[in-house]
Amino acid sequence: MGHHRIHNFNAGPAALPESVLEEAQESLLNYKGSGMSITEISHRSKLFEDIINDAVARTKRLLKLDDRFTVLFIQGGASMQFCMIPMNFLDGNKSADYVDTGTWSSKAIKEAQILGKKITVVASSKDKNYSYIPKGISFSKDAAFVHITSNNTIKGTQWASFPDTKGVPIVSDMSSDIMSRPLDADRFALIYAGAQKNIGPAGVCMVIIREDMLKMVPDNLPAMLKYTTYAESNSLYNTPPCFGIYIIQLVLKWLEETIGGLEKMDAINRKKGETLYGYMDSSKFYKATAEPGSRSLMNVTFRLPSEELEKKFIDEAQKNGLGGLKGHRSVGGCRASIYNATGQEAVNALTGFMKEFEKKNG
Amino acid sequence: MGHHRIHNFNAGPAALPESVLEEAQESLLNYKGSGMSITEISHRSKLFEDIINDAVARTKRLLKLDDRFTVLFIQGGASMQFCMIPMNFLDGNKSADYVDTGTWSSKAIKEAQILGKKITVVASSKDKNYSYIPKGISFSKDAAFVHITSNNTIKGTQWASFPDTKGVPIVSDMSSDIMSRPLDADRFALIYAGAQKNIGPAGVCMVIIREDMLKMVPDNLPAMLKYTTYAESNSLYNTPPCFGIYIIQLVLKWLEETIGGLEKMDAINRKKGETLYGYMDSSKFYKATAEPGSRSLMNVTFRLPSEELEKKFIDEAQKNGLGGLKGHRSVGGCRASIYNATGQEAVNALTGFMKEFEKKNG
Repeated sequence: MGHHRIHNFNAGPAALPESVLEEAQESLLNYKGSGMSITEISHRSKLFEDIINDAVARTKRLLKLDDRFTVLFIQGGASMQFCMIPMNFLDGNKSADYVDTGTWSSKAIKEAQILGKKITVVASSKDKNYSYIPKGISFSKDAAFVHITSNNTIKGTQWASFPDTKGVPIVSDMSSDIMSRPLDADRFALIYAGAQKNIGPAGVCMVIIREDMLKMVPDNLPAMLKYTTYAESNSLYNTPPCFGIYIIQLVLKWLEETIGGLEKMDAINRKKGETLYGYMDSSKFYKATAEPGSRSLMNVTFRLPSEELEKKFIDEAQKNGLGGLKGHRSVGGCRASIYNATGQEAVNALTGFMKEFEKKNG
Repeated sequence: MGHHRIHNFNAGPAALPESVLEEAQESLLNYKGSGMSITEISHRSKLFEDIINDAVARTKRLLKLDDRFTVLFIQGGASMQFCMIPMNFLDGNKSADYVDTGTWSSKAIKEAQILGKKITVVASSKDKNYSYIPKGISFSKDAAFVHITSNNTIKGTQWASFPDTKGVPIVSDMSSDIMSRPLDADRFALIYAGAQKNIGPAGVCMVIIREDMLKMVPDNLPAMLKYTTYAESNSLYNTPPCFGIYIIQLVLKWLEETIGGLEKMDAINRKKGETLYGYMDSSKFYKATAEPGSRSLMNVTFRLPSEELEKKFIDEAQKNGLGGLKGHRSVGGCRASIYNATGQEAVNALTGFMKEFEKKNG
């Protein structure tokens, strides 16, 4: 243990549980006595089928998904989903509602528009630099779906609860908070999540899709851009990103067997958030950028009194074994991403350092 | 060394050099003293920029690509390229020529047709179950490009030399023979290759594109489906498949520094092919399925006198540490994939076993 690893607050690719990395390390030369690396086994082998089936089964158990849902693994990240969603569900005259809560939802909107699809931006928090989650939204009754971004990695905001869409299916980008808290699956028709934040390495996107959505997919789409292609083949139409799916399987096993499920994960994440936001609220030196009711428990964005101090803070933190605290290049400032695999001890080390830094520079 | 690893003749995902796997193993908990796993570092970090830049530079050196070419890393495998190619290069009234040499080129043709693009199948070897590469093809003078599959993994055929297209740019799927021999880059406008055969793990596709092709890309495509998006961002528009690109970098380093370049790799591969085909040609028990002038040096497909003997052969080979010899499920029979990382010693072990098996069962 140890291996001189730092506390990793990267926004994604992000920290993975050390036990997962240790197990993956063993599998890299000889997976389960097969005489082959996990990267060298066939995706059509029993060995790999067991991996993908276990990843699907654990996802269904953890998120309490019933039989209406299918779990898929698709390449291209959440950004590929931005175009696949309108291509698959806005055929002909259909329209959809989008909520704009920052960079990633803005990109999802842009991709639907490039495709010439009919969409309505029914709410936006752009007026206050995306520092809050809109409330009291009026949705279109005839929308094919409502698109939201459940957690906004760059702006540090998160939907604490999901809006009442009066029966219109919700499609949600959950890249940065999937598996961080229990899910009320009944609210959603499609959930997608680039793995590289909470559930795995970069290069694989988990997509959870309800059967009624699969019926909307038009025939005249390329095979790799149709959800039905993946649903009908258990994500094995062509060679999938095997290593990424394997790591996801290990992370889900860790969530079930080491953490004990999403209620427990949620409690841990809430405690981490309380520690960090609590300290910042008591300080005049650090200022959280998101509005209190909209604060993300995954990406804690904050500012110091000056950009000069922010630079010094990030540099000194790095030297003290606290990495990845720089804000996204589009907004500046500081950001501590505290996903599932970044534990309370990392948050305690961070707040400890923050206190010291404030004392010296405040 | 050793680690009880088998001789791996898988068609893909396939064998990787053991030294590459050993180095990757070390990087899985702490990459270059960063205190983070290779899977945990930011794709915007200097550490990762060095990896992707080195992978690009080595690709250019190994394939002798001049400044007109850009090297990209895209997700979705070769199957995603089947639709991206017509989407990017057959806008408006443009048309293209396709050569059908089996499963993968047939799929490329089908994807262009689904998109309603104008294509002409100018040659096919379907008449003889795709057991040969067509010759003396007449290409259309006004085609935007000619599409070929340089090596046919399933049927075991390979273009020994490339056709004269009278100046029409060649677009080639080289998934199963890229980096196996020197390349005459002047013949090609776009080359793509799913990594999981000769250059890396599943989940990343290398695309080499010439500048004139980038100028043909229409504006109204989704960002993730436009080659220009990748070319303008050094494949870092969104989070790329970092681990896959890292393994590619290590494989290319092995090709340059351990093997000594593609002329040497080619000589090694020719010797492997001679050993295996030579033995089969001298035997009445084993029969290579591809016609002599069209035989693949990467995927050696063959039959035994009966399906029963084939099953017995594959099972006994597995017990003797020779894995992955089953033919593709669509064609049956046997197949030994002898990509770059499957060396002469593996081929010698295989022919040794084949001789013993023939003695006992012939």
